[in-house]
Amino acid sequence: MMKKALLTTLLLAAAGAAQAESNVVIYGTIDAGFAKSTDKTLAVAKRDANRLGFRGTEDLGDNLKALFQLEMRFEPDTGTAENGNRPLFQGQSRVGLQGDFGTVRIGRALTAYMEAKDAFDPWNGVPSTAGFKGDLLVAGYNAAPLDPAGSGTDRTANGFWYNSPSVNGFAVATSIGTKESNGGAAIIGRGTAAAPQFAAGANGSTNPFSLAASYKNSSLAVMLGYDRNAIETKLISFNISTQATTELKLTAAYAKQDQDATKPVNSVTKAWVIGANYVLGNGKLLAGYGQKNPEGVAKTKQSSIGYQYSLSKRTYTYVEASNKTTTTGVRFHGAGINHSF
Amino acid sequence: MMKKALLTTLLLAAAGAAQAESNVVIYGTIDAGFAKSTDKTLAVAKRDANRLGFRGTEDLGDNLKALFQLEMRFEPDTGTAENGNRPLFQGQSRVGLQGDFGTVRIGRALTAYMEAKDAFDPWNGVPSTAGFKGDLLVAGYNAAPLDPAGSGTDRTANGFWYNSPSVNGFAVATSIGTKESNGGAAIIGRGTAAAPQFAAGANGSTNPFSLAASYKNSSLAVMLGYDRNAIETKLISFNISTQATTELKLTAAYAKQDQDATKPVNSVTKAWVIGANYVLGNGKLLAGYGQKNPEGVAKTKQSSIGYQYSLSKRTYTYVEASNKTTTTGVRFHGAGINHSF
Amino acid sequence: MMKKALLTTLLLAAAGAAQAESNVVIYGTIDAGFAKSTDKTLAVAKRDANRLGFRGTEDLGDNLKALFQLEMRFEPDTGTAENGNRPLFQGQSRVGLQGDFGTVRIGRALTAYMEAKDAFDPWNGVPSTAGFKGDLLVAGYNAAPLDPAGSGTDRTANGFWYNSPSVNGFAVATSIGTKESNGGAAIIGRGTAAAPQFAAGANGSTNPFSLAASYKNSSLAVMLGYDRNAIETKLISFNISTQATTELKLTAAYAKQDQDATKPVNSVTKAWVIGANYVLGNGKLLAGYGQKNPEGVAKTKQSSIGYQYSLSKRTYTYVEASNKTTTTGVRFHGAGINHSF
Repeated sequence: MMKKALLTTLLLAAAGAAQAESNVVIYGTIDAGFAKSTDKTLAVAKRDANRLGFRGTEDLGDNLKALFQLEMRFEPDTGTAENGNRPLFQGQSRVGLQGDFGTVRIGRALTAYMEAKDAFDPWNGVPSTAGFKGDLLVAGYNAAPLDPAGSGTDRTANGFWYNSPSVNGFAVATSIGTKESNGGAAIIGRGTAAAPQFAAGANGSTNPFSLAASYKNSSLAVMLGYDRNAIETKLISFNISTQATTELKLTAAYAKQDQDATKPVNSVTKAWVIGANYVLGNGKLLAGYGQKNPEGVAKTKQSSIGYQYSLSKRTYTYVEASNKTTTTGVRFHGAGINHSF
Repeated sequence: MMKKALLTTLLLAAAGAAQAESNVVIYGTIDAGFAKSTDKTLAVAKRDANRLGFRGTEDLGDNLKALFQLEMRFEPDTGTAENGNRPLFQGQSRVGLQGDFGTVRIGRALTAYMEAKDAFDPWNGVPSTAGFKGDLLVAGYNAAPLDPAGSGTDRTANGFWYNSPSVNGFAVATSIGTKESNGGAAIIGRGTAAAPQFAAGANGSTNPFSLAASYKNSSLAVMLGYDRNAIETKLISFNISTQATTELKLTAAYAKQDQDATKPVNSVTKAWVIGANYVLGNGKLLAGYGQKNPEGVAKTKQSSIGYQYSLSKRTYTYVEASNKTTTTGVRFHGAGINHSF
Repeated sequence: MMKKALLTTLLLAAAGAAQAESNVVIYGTIDAGFAKSTDKTLAVAKRDANRLGFRGTEDLGDNLKALFQLEMRFEPDTGTAENGNRPLFQGQSRVGLQGDFGTVRIGRALTAYMEAKDAFDPWNGVPSTAGFKGDLLVAGYNAAPLDPAGSGTDRTANGFWYNSPSVNGFAVATSIGTKESNGGAAIIGRGTAAAPQFAAGANGSTNPFSLAASYKNSSLAVMLGYDRNAIETKLISFNISTQATTELKLTAAYAKQDQDATKPVNSVTKAWVIGANYVLGNGKLLAGYGQKNPEGVAKTKQSSIGYQYSLSKRTYTYVEASNKTTTTGVRFHGAGINHSF
């Protein structure tokens, strides 16, 4: 057991000079509870992503740091990797340098826009059925269409990231990927079933690129996002949030997806989400409403409400409910516990 | 390396006020040796489950704690996940709360009965070929028939656990699962190959449920177990152990499986195992004998003997042998090393 | 987070007597950068193996120690396990004992020869396209032909290792495996497609065995290696390196593979690699040249050059280039960052 190991180290440390240069942190979140959708049986489910991560920094002098982060994702109800089939380090696998110039990193992680948008999500980036992440908040956009099916839709593999420092509240984050395929299925697009626009395992036709330009002060945050995937689908997004009072945060997000490169008709999808978080002692009330409007297809409407009660800074319980309607409606109820370490 | 990281923390700790609230422990077991069955080539094999785990607790005040545990399982001879195909956190993935009321947890782990029975196993829950776990000790019962093939037979996915506190030696543990399928193969049962009783990926017909009611004092332990899986197979079990002398522990276990819900004829299997552990200085002698008697099929008889020699509290070497006979007999010999950390 | 946990431990340690017996170290390497081969699109790639490992030792008294090591491998550009399909603990999974007699270990890891040869590789065992590992350095030898396709070619599953202590600079390392198959594809060998010499999933015809006998002093190191896999392919290898000056290390390696047991004609492959490492302040220059000459097939020639610049003892950046020609030539360029923790 690690715990006992520390005692040795302690005693050694007391005896000798410290030469500590290294810093590895194990962290994680485990979130599990019960969920019931009107179209499914009662399930043990997660509200938040479940993580086990390893990260660290090394001071290189001259304000320069090396940094890495490796984050596993898993399903608490079955113990498998996330979704049963996602990569071992689905959360992220990145290494890089940080200095006065900002941060550069290489590997696989959320695109710059996908990482920035969570601050404008009334569900705070939590991928619950009652939340807006992955659908209404991003107008149904898929950042990684050439990845294998089920891999997730908000990451860049084979990527390079640059995050600027924050200057007077202004900051820019970008990510760019290579054209490498990761072995995804064919995409018919503007081709035919016999001759798809992107064959199975094809390379991208362009480098996936993402940009998040943001401004933040004590009461206001805005973010302009742009994301273009390897098959040239484009997303633009405008996001704003305000800390209206100490207790009340309001958010609004707008996103427009253009699939013209692979879809000759009805290529545009627009969506918006508004929300509120209200702090009440150890509790927090969440509310959100949004619409997604794909050209030529029925509109989706979603309203959600939730409540989190903190047992500590690292542990909370929650209840939540939502109603999501396209042609038919699905009502969802969930309750559970979220513990971070 | 983590070890060096601790030095930094130490020095920081000496300088500032402590704000420690958190507690993550890395633990594990690695067990490997040589095994020879009369029907197989000499193999490098494990005797015990191989684990790498992460667990922690957080004090929430008022005698309340949050707790989590994530446990990987693996094969030491090939480096793969357990059995080559089991979930990343096959050991368990659970989060919960502990208080004066007992412990509640959500996730995936051993059923309440399967967890409690190891104390009455002369092989102490070690899943060796020479042991009784998974077959004679449980009358061949499978707690998870709707899980994918090879997933293991003693766990509940999508589960909820309650463990009572111990009151004057009495305690109760229960687990209950949802009816959710985890994508297992079809079960013909009382149906036909064309119309199986449970189709591939079918939900359960009932909530899997498990109960272990136990009493323990300094010299005696008894446990009454009940387990019913999602396809309504039922198991009842009675278990007793006594610390006859300081050196000698005796165990007896009886289990009866009833598969009537999926098997119209010969649905009952009865089994029993008796055993002894004898401590001799740093050594421990294990012996066990048992029978499994499925209706309408040949009886299985197994006799086993083993010896463990402790090099420390965390490391021991072992030799063991068994003879298991149904219609033909298989003799097994094993030797190896078991190291926990 | 683990970091905070240490504070608790610290305070407990200050209060009570230390009982530390245990010692778990988390370590790893994450290496990512850009790579361009003349036959492929620009890629985010690794130069070194990416690792996340857990190892520990326990002092058993009388100069005896128990030790274990578990090492994950992964791809930083996609977050998957190494090569997408390799075992969870592809790096190694071993447990053993160390004493005055040397070290014995059981599990899966590099064969004795494969582990020893890296010291004679001008690329220091780094599996870059610009390096020589896995091909020219070992004459194309595969130590694990019965493992599943893509599993790697330098390890023994189901293995036992003995490493002698170093006596006056002389040391011997051996590994031996069982004949167990790990589920690999069929090998036609001296058979036919209909009746292959080794069927899919067949056991080996002999125990894989490996030997590295080495001598080392302050300026000279030599190693004689022998490796025979489970289908009786044999490798002999002679390796030498000299620290010619404080800055300059020179290496030479020769290997001869004999596949006569499965290949009646043209069964011999010979290869050699010479190289140099030159330290220049925080930088290190690498250069290598080699040839592989399989009987009856075109010769392969490879020349490589690289430069590493250390930002610290644990972090370096690199650039490298190579030209590898068999019938056609492939030019390769790479650059990136390597961070160990």
